[in-house]
Amino acid sequence: MMLKNDLLLRAARGEKTERVPVWLMRQAGRILPEYRAVRASLSGFKELVETPDRAAEVTIQPVDILGVDAAIIFSDILVVAEGMGLTYEMEEKRGPFFPKTIETIDDIKKLRIGTAENDFQYTIEAIRITKKALDGRVPLIGFAGAPFTMLCYMVEGGGSKTFSKSKKLLFSEPQAAHMLLQKITDSTIDYLKGQVAAGADLVQVFDSWAGILSPQAYEEFSIPYMKQIADAINDVPVTLFGKGAFYARKSMASLNCQVIGTDWNMDPQESRALVGNKTLQGNLDPCVLYGSHDFIAKETKAMIKAFGSQRYIANLGHGVYPDTDPMKVKHFVETVQSFDISSLGE
Amino acid sequence: MMLKNDLLLRAARGEKTERVPVWLMRQAGRILPEYRAVRASLSGFKELVETPDRAAEVTIQPVDILGVDAAIIFSDILVVAEGMGLTYEMEEKRGPFFPKTIETIDDIKKLRIGTAENDFQYTIEAIRITKKALDGRVPLIGFAGAPFTMLCYMVEGGGSKTFSKSKKLLFSEPQAAHMLLQKITDSTIDYLKGQVAAGADLVQVFDSWAGILSPQAYEEFSIPYMKQIADAINDVPVTLFGKGAFYARKSMASLNCQVIGTDWNMDPQESRALVGNKTLQGNLDPCVLYGSHDFIAKETKAMIKAFGSQRYIANLGHGVYPDTDPMKVKHFVETVQSFDISSLGE
Repeated sequence: MMLKNDLLLRAARGEKTERVPVWLMRQAGRILPEYRAVRASLSGFKELVETPDRAAEVTIQPVDILGVDAAIIFSDILVVAEGMGLTYEMEEKRGPFFPKTIETIDDIKKLRIGTAENDFQYTIEAIRITKKALDGRVPLIGFAGAPFTMLCYMVEGGGSKTFSKSKKLLFSEPQAAHMLLQKITDSTIDYLKGQVAAGADLVQVFDSWAGILSPQAYEEFSIPYMKQIADAINDVPVTLFGKGAFYARKSMASLNCQVIGTDWNMDPQESRALVGNKTLQGNLDPCVLYGSHDFIAKETKAMIKAFGSQRYIANLGHGVYPDTDPMKVKHFVETVQSFDISSLGE
Repeated sequence: MMLKNDLLLRAARGEKTERVPVWLMRQAGRILPEYRAVRASLSGFKELVETPDRAAEVTIQPVDILGVDAAIIFSDILVVAEGMGLTYEMEEKRGPFFPKTIETIDDIKKLRIGTAENDFQYTIEAIRITKKALDGRVPLIGFAGAPFTMLCYMVEGGGSKTFSKSKKLLFSEPQAAHMLLQKITDSTIDYLKGQVAAGADLVQVFDSWAGILSPQAYEEFSIPYMKQIADAINDVPVTLFGKGAFYARKSMASLNCQVIGTDWNMDPQESRALVGNKTLQGNLDPCVLYGSHDFIAKETKAMIKAFGSQRYIANLGHGVYPDTDPMKVKHFVETVQSFDISSLGE
């Protein structure tokens, strides 16, 4: 099926775009009252993730309501761990977490390799339904957590201030850590291939906890697994996003991917110099959307000027925060979409 | 009084050192059973901070027990806010926090400028006692929080996942934010000058939340106040440490300071290139101290090689975590102190 709006994919492939495409990480979620209404009609977050037609419904909401240039399938990165045998739970205030965590090498050995066919069918089916319902309006993004970030969640149980348990594993039992990372990677590759087969037009890998590692530790514990994923996904563009991994931009850009995600700590021009001819995505501080409409417009335009209009996908530098006013999100989207790129004199 | 061990100060001033000096951020604290015994004999953390002879006692413990090359006065960065009229409390599990936070411009107007003479005498007195008791064995470091980090604490009440409240203030009421930052800066300068007058041999400014800002926002909301502090303290070396502010190393190094602190995300050689002839401090991941003795030694030696032996102060890249084995801390200290710098062939 031909896409009516393929700006995101052209930007990802480095082809010319007549304006900058824009979407938001976590756009399908709590910022929209329409999402909250769907969720309130179900038993909770997990039922929504696992009910394909409802997941498809909330995936499409931001396309209708915010006018973004891409949809991203509604799901959670923790589903990969669940597919491997480690069940997650969701508590409204706490976020998703694992009641049982990975503590020993035996725990790692017991994990299975999750497959799209056996373990992630609800997301695969949600992608099929969404693609049909979108009817080619915009591309659909699939996603997964990076193996290193998944390891952190599976070992800590959830977020952490110091990630002591994860790093104890890396630093005192590196072989066990690598065994776990490989199992997550194998599961993630099958999951992402399933997403692509079902219709995902681009896939993004989120290394949300990249910022807790040193450059050397990142080279050892994350990059090799990002590489395997990037090498395995060939039919659609791949976006790699390491939150806080400013030090790894060059290394990530050397992988077989098309887009490098950036957060607001990372200077756009410095990022350009580091990633060569890859496309960049990002990087507005989500908190800018707490400001006035004028402030949002000013910061958004400054961001586009700093990145330039080509090989660029506008986004926030992190997922949109749940208490953000949807009208301000819309103002951000419209500011990008109405930006006259000829004014840049590129 | 002549110092018997002035390695830290010589390294800070860029003078030749025959070996690398070493100390740890948060070395006076929960890692030591001797500290916990002192604290258990008092009503809590705050009484310890405000009782000069006991604060001096725990300040000196790591010099005796761990053999570090510097003492750092036992206190908390939140005392500056308290001196300005915003009282903090301490809960064991939660850490220090403000029951009442800064919400409006009127709250900011009500704050007074804290002074060493009227508001921080307990720390000033603790420094006098410590200096006398140290008897010149090692230098004594004074410290304060950076104005931006203090603003975050005073607005959020404590730590935060997103720092939404602080950024709402910066982005929607920048004039109010600058008024608050200036009041904190004025208080901090008086406090640090008092510390130096009482005997502090070097002062460090901790910008613990620097990593939440974009490079541009940091230039607007932190650097100008760091500059005022660095310009005001002339009698002793000044260390500026912005946790997560990899993007501001060059900018910080342009200020009137002697040492730039670095965390483990920041590559030592890249830091060298960015800070010119300033001294560097850091940057081992505190979690490395969860590893084996061999692993700690290997990582510590690699760190020294990467920084080089001159204009360098070995430290962690963040405060030592409370659950770290003191024997492993000692092994880190001894590895630095026994490192033969002639092996570097500099």
